[in-house]
Amino acid sequence: MNVAVGLIFFCRASGASPPFYPEYTIHDVRRMLVKTPDGAQDVRAIWMEDGVVKAVNQRALPHRFEIVEMDNSEDVAEAISDMTVRGAPSIGAAAAYGIALAATRGEDLEEAAKRMRATRPTAHDLFYAVNLMLSERKRLPGAADEYSDSIVARCRSIGEHGLDLIPDGSRILTHCNAGALATVDFGTALAPMRMAHRAGKKFFVYVDETRPRLQGAKLTAWELLNEGIDHAIIADNASGHYIRSDVDVVIVGADRIAANGDFANKIGTYARAVLAGENKVPFYVAAPISTFDPSLRDGDGIVIEQRSPDEVLIMDGIRVAPQGSDALNPAFDVTPGRYVTGFITEAGLLKPDGLSKLLETQ
Amino acid sequence: MNVAVGLIFFCRASGASPPFYPEYTIHDVRRMLVKTPDGAQDVRAIWMEDGVVKAVNQRALPHRFEIVEMDNSEDVAEAISDMTVRGAPSIGAAAAYGIALAATRGEDLEEAAKRMRATRPTAHDLFYAVNLMLSERKRLPGAADEYSDSIVARCRSIGEHGLDLIPDGSRILTHCNAGALATVDFGTALAPMRMAHRAGKKFFVYVDETRPRLQGAKLTAWELLNEGIDHAIIADNASGHYIRSDVDVVIVGADRIAANGDFANKIGTYARAVLAGENKVPFYVAAPISTFDPSLRDGDGIVIEQRSPDEVLIMDGIRVAPQGSDALNPAFDVTPGRYVTGFITEAGLLKPDGLSKLLETQ
Repeated sequence: MNVAVGLIFFCRASGASPPFYPEYTIHDVRRMLVKTPDGAQDVRAIWMEDGVVKAVNQRALPHRFEIVEMDNSEDVAEAISDMTVRGAPSIGAAAAYGIALAATRGEDLEEAAKRMRATRPTAHDLFYAVNLMLSERKRLPGAADEYSDSIVARCRSIGEHGLDLIPDGSRILTHCNAGALATVDFGTALAPMRMAHRAGKKFFVYVDETRPRLQGAKLTAWELLNEGIDHAIIADNASGHYIRSDVDVVIVGADRIAANGDFANKIGTYARAVLAGENKVPFYVAAPISTFDPSLRDGDGIVIEQRSPDEVLIMDGIRVAPQGSDALNPAFDVTPGRYVTGFITEAGLLKPDGLSKLLETQ
Repeated sequence: MNVAVGLIFFCRASGASPPFYPEYTIHDVRRMLVKTPDGAQDVRAIWMEDGVVKAVNQRALPHRFEIVEMDNSEDVAEAISDMTVRGAPSIGAAAAYGIALAATRGEDLEEAAKRMRATRPTAHDLFYAVNLMLSERKRLPGAADEYSDSIVARCRSIGEHGLDLIPDGSRILTHCNAGALATVDFGTALAPMRMAHRAGKKFFVYVDETRPRLQGAKLTAWELLNEGIDHAIIADNASGHYIRSDVDVVIVGADRIAANGDFANKIGTYARAVLAGENKVPFYVAAPISTFDPSLRDGDGIVIEQRSPDEVLIMDGIRVAPQGSDALNPAFDVTPGRYVTGFITEAGLLKPDGLSKLLETQ
């Protein structure tokens, strides 16, 4: 995997005074990553160009903006496994491009598909994309681009459908990163916020830091900062306090949604759903139809990925826990559909009890 | 403040293989910190000796075991403010010793009391201890020792009263550190676990890492490890998943309890209480009577300390969030008494609706 570095700014803070951070780098980064209405440069989270798959290195953010380049399906699989590319729809796009690379190079597509499917078990988009590419094998790599374009179009549509759920002056809470990075562009949970912001609405976002990998603090905050959306990062422990006292709406993404509305998403989502329900705060799940898995009747069948204990025990190379203590590290949890106020999809706002009918028509 | 270093072992992990950690240091530390039935060395979290206040430096754990020495009330106030000494009962003992030091040195006690009260606003024990020492000013420093001894005796009693709440084979979840470090000795939430372990019961503890300061991963895990209690650290986000799927009982401490049972404790406690209630898991609060504040009718009057955003934004000197993003960092939240199955106190197990009567008799 080659790394082409766009902008590098890495800081090691030693106390209360952070190092100088020239403002122009924010705008440069914004232009590179986020589509803006004035036509600023459109760099997606992942794309294919001249036979090479390029992706924003999500492990390097927020301090370094890097584009990694992959010219074979093994490297794409590794990028999914090590979370260089993450977020269910972006993983789906990566898998599609991985199959496309294999096709371009004349590799065995079934082998490449197997390699992709073995990377991460929970996100439905990955399996959906791999199967779609296998059925479109004669149209690769074009079909992969079409798939990725369709994700972007669906996310834009999610943003439009979710726009009205964000009243002017509202206070939103989101978990993990369901932004442009996770979804090729626009985002799922963040798409309605982008649209609302661009429509001139004022609102405030509580960003769960999202331990253990801190995708909220590192990625969602970075996207909101570049978009100019008012926000504050909170420890995951503080979400209950704010849902009880200040939050008007919770919006999260999803990695896999069963036919009855039970869904898997980043660990901690279930707690937010229960807390929202307890406090009568609307709880929305934003996801494209590719995240729905009609083969699952309910959430019991969703495989939960267990990741390394080191993600909990070690922070930036420093062990925080005593030697001899171990950790458990489930990457996702399952939230029962009864806690979901609505699913924001490209087909509009759906109630959990209306999913089965929709899925039959897909 | 002088630092007398007992044992130093600091590790910077570079990956999956941690540095060698000789087993004897665990046993040395155990003997130094935790009272055991076989009479091993009894080092409390804080004590006074030869006119000097000594305390375990809770900022240095789990990698370095240090005793800090303080010979004036300013240093004691600083140790409370910077969380060298933390946990409501230990804070109370520290404040008592701070007043004792001021008395020994012939300082103005009202000034010393003012200094102590200005350190941290939420823990009731601090104010309780300061007032008690002012009323006992002619018996200082002896009264401070008596106060500290009484905390230890109360915590031991909490352990005995809570023992039956831990069935053999049970799965417990705890939040933050309500152990010996937080309470001079034994602990509040951890006291029943110590007693159950020493009584030969087998059980397993899920330890919330407890961001932002990681008192669970750093302190509770260290205490359980030294005690030999089976446990695993989890990201705070995973507590809902485990409460739903595996936890039999949740036990936490408290920093201030109002007359109706509403209580303040480490941020994130409210979420565990709601999740326990939703899943019909018993939720216990362990605290000595000094934590009850009969002047407060309910939790609305509890002052919540807001700490520096840097605790969220910076980890071990490394900034995790983008420059330009801010954080909100409430140190505590308030949990309504209706979520509490019972309070484990030195006076026995109390129901929230029975508190008022008890408090009238104190």
